Amino acid sequence: MNSRKLSEQINTLGHEARVASRLLAKSSTEAKNQALLNISEALLSKRDMILESNRLDYEAALEKDPNPVNADRLMLNAERLADMADGVRKIVSLNDPIGEEFDETTLENGLSLKKRRVPLGIIGVIYESRPNVTVEIASLCLKTGNATILRGGSEALNSNKALVVCIKDAIRDAGLPSESVQFIESTDRVAVNHMLNMREYIDLLIPRGSESLVRLVAEKATMPAITGGVGVSHTYIDSDADLEKALAIAFNAKVQRPSVCNALDTLLVHSAVASEYLPRLAEMWIQSGVTLHIDERAMNVLGSLQGPSIVAAKDEDWGREYLSLDAAVKVVDSLDDAMFHIETYGSAHSEAIVTESDKAANRFLDEIDAAVVFVNASTRFTDGGEFGFGAEVAISTDKIHARGPMGLKEITSYKWTVVGTGQVRL
Amino acid sequence: MNSRKLSEQINTLGHEARVASRLLAKSSTEAKNQALLNISEALLSKRDMILESNRLDYEAALEKDPNPVNADRLMLNAERLADMADGVRKIVSLNDPIGEEFDETTLENGLSLKKRRVPLGIIGVIYESRPNVTVEIASLCLKTGNATILRGGSEALNSNKALVVCIKDAIRDAGLPSESVQFIESTDRVAVNHMLNMREYIDLLIPRGSESLVRLVAEKATMPAITGGVGVSHTYIDSDADLEKALAIAFNAKVQRPSVCNALDTLLVHSAVASEYLPRLAEMWIQSGVTLHIDERAMNVLGSLQGPSIVAAKDEDWGREYLSLDAAVKVVDSLDDAMFHIETYGSAHSEAIVTESDKAANRFLDEIDAAVVFVNASTRFTDGGEFGFGAEVAISTDKIHARGPMGLKEITSYKWTVVGTGQVRL
Repeated sequence: MNSRKLSEQINTLGHEARVASRLLAKSSTEAKNQALLNISEALLSKRDMILESNRLDYEAALEKDPNPVNADRLMLNAERLADMADGVRKIVSLNDPIGEEFDETTLENGLSLKKRRVPLGIIGVIYESRPNVTVEIASLCLKTGNATILRGGSEALNSNKALVVCIKDAIRDAGLPSESVQFIESTDRVAVNHMLNMREYIDLLIPRGSESLVRLVAEKATMPAITGGVGVSHTYIDSDADLEKALAIAFNAKVQRPSVCNALDTLLVHSAVASEYLPRLAEMWIQSGVTLHIDERAMNVLGSLQGPSIVAAKDEDWGREYLSLDAAVKVVDSLDDAMFHIETYGSAHSEAIVTESDKAANRFLDEIDAAVVFVNASTRFTDGGEFGFGAEVAISTDKIHARGPMGLKEITSYKWTVVGTGQVRL
Repeated sequence: MNSRKLSEQINTLGHEARVASRLLAKSSTEAKNQALLNISEALLSKRDMILESNRLDYEAALEKDPNPVNADRLMLNAERLADMADGVRKIVSLNDPIGEEFDETTLENGLSLKKRRVPLGIIGVIYESRPNVTVEIASLCLKTGNATILRGGSEALNSNKALVVCIKDAIRDAGLPSESVQFIESTDRVAVNHMLNMREYIDLLIPRGSESLVRLVAEKATMPAITGGVGVSHTYIDSDADLEKALAIAFNAKVQRPSVCNALDTLLVHSAVASEYLPRLAEMWIQSGVTLHIDERAMNVLGSLQGPSIVAAKDEDWGREYLSLDAAVKVVDSLDDAMFHIETYGSAHSEAIVTESDKAANRFLDEIDAAVVFVNASTRFTDGGEFGFGAEVAISTDKIHARGPMGLKEITSYKWTVVGTGQVRL
């Protein structure tokens, strides 16, 4: 398709979404929940159609890269569809934030002021993720009365198309406009560039994906954007750490799911505990396939373990988001050194300290500037589902509007209502 | 100055602001309030210096445009300085939002989650307003631990420079970094273009001014931006209006201060009350110097008053922000017609209905999508001071982060703190 025709087609999607968003903003909680229940059912009843489409993506991915770990991210099966259906039902059970009134005050002149929660309008999301993200974003937006314009990655195109058919039918069957969820099928880069200029049809644009995509949107989007998804996560093992907790936490943060943004990238260890702690952790990590990229002082401790799983860290290992079974390791002499390293190399996503010292914990909580700051827990908990949001639209590393996992409330706005009896300004 | 040198100079201001913002973020409420009290005192004790600088701006403005109404906006005097000092003391009396904890929950696994309010960092503001805006923005940002990079209009340059000297001294005397408030003295357009690319040194950029400035920032800023200041405000007089209230409200909304964004631009009148209401309002308005730009149906009612103050509306009068003693007037047949007109031509700033019907009032509150929606009150109340915020950084017409007048809370962010006892993700 030539790029002019593609732009026209995307604008048509945008215009339809705008009309739908006005209807959706006024829709009842009941109608929106019915649409969500319909989606949840369709994920089960249309299983064969979805899995058949998904097989095309999975096989294409395997052909491109025979390592099944990567293709596995894309793969759907009956169990994963059932999990997705459960996730949607969880969103049904959450309170509808739209229409909530808050921050009520009465001024001295008798004017009654309230904030009333309203949808944002149309949320555009560009993502390169697993197909379940399509269902999660559509469901959260539907619950909050927002229309969506989605642009998924080419590797999941067939799966996403099948899921979007289910979603649109489910919405229509609930008496709501099926144009509430629009999906851009073109995988042409031109489509992304066009979205950046759709100020008229996208009220908030969210990129979920690579650092280059996030940067492109931050710099070029003509509408408000919230960027997220890039997580350079540190865990600092303090001199006052409980080392058993520290072993469990660092192991979990790196190994439980290495391909995601909240996985551990760099471990910082206080020199007072390094010689006791590091050899034990290194053994656990290496047994699970982790490669350690370690600084000189860690080399002094771990030298005897040297082998293919332990390599000298290069400059570019600090501040690197691995998304793989790799971890950088550095020995530091103080909490201050650890915090300075995090401030220098972190991406303000998820940062953790392991310590039994309240003073150290509180300094870390006070001074580290990140979306989520942890004491004695794995950074893997930075997640909308774990936080009780049912799902997440994205994890914001921006500081405006929303920070961290974005659930329902984070994709709403408010209006002020002011009710008087004829007041005028003096 | 050549543009490379100017860019370097502005980057230096940015770098200094970043260092200051880190100190300011950790400063006590006491220290911040002391700085504000010092500013308030300086506005009185350094009055002569400030007024002398202001005289340069005032005289230059008069020379450019002999109409004293325009120069008057710039003019400072003892009374206006005393008002500004009062405004700063009002900000001292407000609660410091920084450090507040909210949205606390404990997950089933025992993790304790809280949001903690933190500063945004560095707020950049580009404005073309009266010099008191410099003091208001600096004071609100100081109270919330934000550093600021300010770029005021050339017409107020001498006044702003004098005020910034007072502000910096006041901050330093309170033991806080004077680089917390940075002022770009260059009035070169290059300075604005450079700010748009200072992603490293500006966390939120706010344009206050003309529509072209707002558009430039929305489209070209590489960092998050909140746009505001353009208000095309409608007041709709319903068939069920109390006409005495309607006279007072429409008169106030247009005449009390026509040069600002929350002043009435277009009056919509239900046809059932037009012949009783419009002649009375027109007489009051014309006596105060208002020019009415009226549609054909209003002409049928007001034809007998025709003269230089009553002219036929042109297409461009609908949706026009006058900022002057002009008003567009249109007769409509229903609440729906009025809301359709507002949706088509409004700028989502401030919209009002005058009615005694609860049903009409509630439909207007529900369906009009604007920052502030009024029932039976003048749109002039859209104002941080009137809302009890002490002052305002801007009036946001965006839907993300903050909507309407932006006071203290609206220039903060939050971080999640998660405290555990060794939890890992399953």
